[in-house]
Amino acid sequence: MSHVTEDLYPTDTASVPSGDGARDLTVTDRWNTPVGTPNGGYVLATMLRGLGEELGSDQPLVAAISYLSPARPGPARLRTSALKAGRRLSTGTAELVCGDRTVAHVTASYGDRVGASMELGTPPSLPRPDDCLDPFADARPDAGLMHRVEYRMPHQGAGGAGDPTYRLWQRMAGERVPDLYALAFLVDSCPPPVLEVSPGGSVTVQLTVHLHRVPVTPWVATVVSTRHVAGGYHEEDCELWDEDGNLLAQSRQLGILL
Amino acid sequence: MSHVTEDLYPTDTASVPSGDGARDLTVTDRWNTPVGTPNGGYVLATMLRGLGEELGSDQPLVAAISYLSPARPGPARLRTSALKAGRRLSTGTAELVCGDRTVAHVTASYGDRVGASMELGTPPSLPRPDDCLDPFADARPDAGLMHRVEYRMPHQGAGGAGDPTYRLWQRMAGERVPDLYALAFLVDSCPPPVLEVSPGGSVTVQLTVHLHRVPVTPWVATVVSTRHVAGGYHEEDCELWDEDGNLLAQSRQLGILL
Repeated sequence: MSHVTEDLYPTDTASVPSGDGARDLTVTDRWNTPVGTPNGGYVLATMLRGLGEELGSDQPLVAAISYLSPARPGPARLRTSALKAGRRLSTGTAELVCGDRTVAHVTASYGDRVGASMELGTPPSLPRPDDCLDPFADARPDAGLMHRVEYRMPHQGAGGAGDPTYRLWQRMAGERVPDLYALAFLVDSCPPPVLEVSPGGSVTVQLTVHLHRVPVTPWVATVVSTRHVAGGYHEEDCELWDEDGNLLAQSRQLGILL
Repeated sequence: MSHVTEDLYPTDTASVPSGDGARDLTVTDRWNTPVGTPNGGYVLATMLRGLGEELGSDQPLVAAISYLSPARPGPARLRTSALKAGRRLSTGTAELVCGDRTVAHVTASYGDRVGASMELGTPPSLPRPDDCLDPFADARPDAGLMHRVEYRMPHQGAGGAGDPTYRLWQRMAGERVPDLYALAFLVDSCPPPVLEVSPGGSVTVQLTVHLHRVPVTPWVATVVSTRHVAGGYHEEDCELWDEDGNLLAQSRQLGILL
């Protein structure tokens, strides 16, 4: 049994400015999914962090990413551009270029959180992480992603078995408390529940994430589900909640069924 | 009492190519909200239609728009750019420029619908439109938008009264059957339900819409609700269903409370 201990998040999402809004980085294979390509959430977190550094904010509020091609491990370039720098909000775009190919396009807004809160939603019903199962306790797949996140699934009520909903805890390697960029990773770090009804797999076309609160504890209660499949495409909704029942983030993606 | 009869949709969302992916258009005040600026859904439908014509597809699947400033009625320019033209999907961006100001940025993917469908959601429970109320039967507000859409609200169960959810029918002027671009308008053509809990109003920062099916009948069952308010921002989710209970579109937006 291998363990999930090495916290590569700060290193692997870093990029350095090279002028005119461009940034150099290395896309690593240490966040690869079992399919063998870098996880889309890792790509998004890396792009959002670089764009935030260019815009002078570490407070992303909302981000929309279009995945054009799978990212490729190796040297890469981020091309960022400011669309608006306002008093309350800054908005910009970023493209990730691997080799000669633009693999993803992000538009994101950043701004401070000040003002009212009200919650009408409900966190997923889950036992404490210690009372859940590590699905990889016996055999951990040989994919980088599975060493970057710990998963804990309830003995009952995890979903699956034909129901395209999963409920589980996630925790980043090294018991890291996620920052807002890491939340953009964690909405896309689970297997797609559409596999329960369409085992051929899916590829994400577009993902939008709303980042509501900065986490203060490591475990993240996660519910991810597909409710609508139409014409060969499916949506997937994800919510992340903290250990105290506060909503951290919500996302929706559109995927193509394979 | 004024009536909702004039179908200006084809005219008011049109744009003409001027070379290099740019298009000329006129933003009209005939889709203004009661606040006095062009409705964000009208802006989105116009941009999506122009981008689709540049990309050679009238089948938008998903679109994400960032609103940077209110659009201004008058001559305007659309600047479009293709990100990817693939076998199954085409993706591009469009910026709307009013005067010297870029007021909105869209990224959208287009592609044909082929393949499986599955629905686990439920349309809103609504009486037939003829058994509902026209909220403006007695006095129609002097805003263009209110002459472009007919609304029908149930006597009971419309939501409101402190509950940030509205359920209603919508139909475009002239009993037009909406196309996919018009669905991108109809997800943003109702008053924001967050007004039920925060009467100061809100401004949309970002909206993403998934376009699932091409409508075949004019009436659209609509449910729009806000469940999460955090740090002065709120999400708003909208679903559009046809008269036969098929999901047409779903959207989510992030707004700033005023």
